[in-house]
Amino acid sequence: MSTPLERFSGVIPAGGVGSRLWPLSRADAPKFLHDLTGSGRTLLRGTWERLAPIAGPERVMVVTGRAHRAAVEAQIPELEDRNIVLEAAPRESTVAIGLAAAILRRREPDVIVGSFAADHVIADEAAFRAAVEQAVVAADAGYIATIGIQPTEPAIGFGYIECADAAHIEGAPDALLVRSFVEKPDEATAARYLADGRHLWNAGMFIARADRLLEQIGAFDAQLRAQLEELAEAWDDPATRGPAVDRLWPGLRRIAIDYAVAEPAAAAGGLAVIPGRFDWDDVGDFASVAKLKSAGRASDLSILGENARVLADASSGIVVSQSDRIISLIGVRDIVVVDTPDALLVTTTANAQRVKGVVDALKLSGRDDVL
Amino acid sequence: MSTPLERFSGVIPAGGVGSRLWPLSRADAPKFLHDLTGSGRTLLRGTWERLAPIAGPERVMVVTGRAHRAAVEAQIPELEDRNIVLEAAPRESTVAIGLAAAILRRREPDVIVGSFAADHVIADEAAFRAAVEQAVVAADAGYIATIGIQPTEPAIGFGYIECADAAHIEGAPDALLVRSFVEKPDEATAARYLADGRHLWNAGMFIARADRLLEQIGAFDAQLRAQLEELAEAWDDPATRGPAVDRLWPGLRRIAIDYAVAEPAAAAGGLAVIPGRFDWDDVGDFASVAKLKSAGRASDLSILGENARVLADASSGIVVSQSDRIISLIGVRDIVVVDTPDALLVTTTANAQRVKGVVDALKLSGRDDVL
Repeated sequence: MSTPLERFSGVIPAGGVGSRLWPLSRADAPKFLHDLTGSGRTLLRGTWERLAPIAGPERVMVVTGRAHRAAVEAQIPELEDRNIVLEAAPRESTVAIGLAAAILRRREPDVIVGSFAADHVIADEAAFRAAVEQAVVAADAGYIATIGIQPTEPAIGFGYIECADAAHIEGAPDALLVRSFVEKPDEATAARYLADGRHLWNAGMFIARADRLLEQIGAFDAQLRAQLEELAEAWDDPATRGPAVDRLWPGLRRIAIDYAVAEPAAAAGGLAVIPGRFDWDDVGDFASVAKLKSAGRASDLSILGENARVLADASSGIVVSQSDRIISLIGVRDIVVVDTPDALLVTTTANAQRVKGVVDALKLSGRDDVL
Repeated sequence: MSTPLERFSGVIPAGGVGSRLWPLSRADAPKFLHDLTGSGRTLLRGTWERLAPIAGPERVMVVTGRAHRAAVEAQIPELEDRNIVLEAAPRESTVAIGLAAAILRRREPDVIVGSFAADHVIADEAAFRAAVEQAVVAADAGYIATIGIQPTEPAIGFGYIECADAAHIEGAPDALLVRSFVEKPDEATAARYLADGRHLWNAGMFIARADRLLEQIGAFDAQLRAQLEELAEAWDDPATRGPAVDRLWPGLRRIAIDYAVAEPAAAAGGLAVIPGRFDWDDVGDFASVAKLKSAGRASDLSILGENARVLADASSGIVVSQSDRIISLIGVRDIVVVDTPDALLVTTTANAQRVKGVVDALKLSGRDDVL
């Protein structure tokens, strides 16, 4: 009999553009295809390198848009053909993860799937692995498992997981039951969450037996489950996949897995969380990029870009350079400068979240060429 | 007998690069070749259009570097061939103005020359003309005349002219004698100058009979005067000009006309000033560009650039765009963004004077390609 970890498969949904990282992130160059840490590897590659040693490289599946196939394959030459799932059009996380689970379960009925965003950053791979191992055990015990991140500050940019009592799962000593998932809080609430010790950041990591996950999707939306199963049945045969996608894809419901799976499972007492004791960042905006790159030293000027040529005097914040232009900063503090061939952004770390507003404005004004 | 104004010739020394306006101003695109007011005309063109109606278009001479000949001619198609003086190499203002004076005097012994920088901004052309007319009368009376600008704030970026008593010149009722020229003051001194009503900004405008000007140069440096006269003698004959330039140019002394002419003349009681009651700006840095462009409304974001495409939210200062890139600003106040094809500057209006330091640093690091 195989161990739970031997039955574990990783799933990497590689979808979001990362609007708050415009003009670096674009529809044709989404966040997961960028090196936002200066490590020399893209976020997608980093996610792969964290996950492949745990699941095995032949047991990691990437779900992405058709437009990104070549880029994903270039980033992960090890990725097997049958492990890249191309979405005909974006359909949110329940479809991405649910379809992967359904395909993998047809190949291996007792598979345990674990889904991890393609565009997050985790430095401590050993601690990550330890948490995944416990989550896999919890999943094998029938839970929808997640890994919540121990907060280090009263962040208002993340959703939170409210923990309940210990789950008492053999082999997963840290597992707690989850009382509820809560939306991004205001500052006072975030401070309370940090103080009470019962709240973890929701990093969107979900680990479950594939059959359990599909059951949960079916309980929420029976039609969606049926569509996903039908797609999965057709998937591995080139003759049937295309027609099934053409027939079913347009009608697939767009819904986040938090709503379709996590919240209902938590409400039913079926969700367990492993507290992750490692630095994690969703690199959601340029303030977060600056913080990561400078290791938290706000007085520094971080510079991202292979050919960056920056001349700075009395300046701090971050410069992202995608050109070989000379970039000169004088006396600008907490500045964000993102220099790309067709668009330039100048803001401050305090305003980093507002970048999405620019993207919305550009959309409204029909300037999709720079999005 | 001709009137003094009929004997007046304008001289426009078009030399300085304008380092504080980098990366807009460059060795090959100096400040005077830019439209810094958004008026649709370059500073040089503006200077010409102020001066030509007073002197007559055939009586304005431009002194510039050989590299700028084509650009100057493109800006001023009306400029007569014999009225463009090309410098073999930069030699500061005494040579530029003194040579023009010497050439013009050989053509017309009793000419009165008036020199006006190519890269200043004056909006009220009628008030400017009125001041020039009085200065020409003062020059005809034997004075080295200047036009000083009535200060409107305690500026520390300009030199000042300290006025003495009325000069009592018929036809120049506003003319005052000049006690001295003073260097850029500190803030306390500038405040005192503003309060005492006896100090005017030195706008570098000098009007004098050509023979008087050359006499004053000769009194300061007899050799320099002799060199200028020798050049002038050879100038209007193509057969003799080249050899004279080759022989004499390398040895010409580099000295500002303020030191060689204005200060000694003031000390000898031979300098008269006409107070100019018009807005004047030397557009010395981007703070000054921003102020000019926004008519002093500091809350505004000024935008310079024919094809500028700027998306700004809660931002003020100035954007200079020389590309068709989308430039997006979010929450940056008093910002200066200068976007050119090979160099980008981000600073604040308060730091605008420090731009010269970047240029110096680029020079030191051998990055002359962007200077």
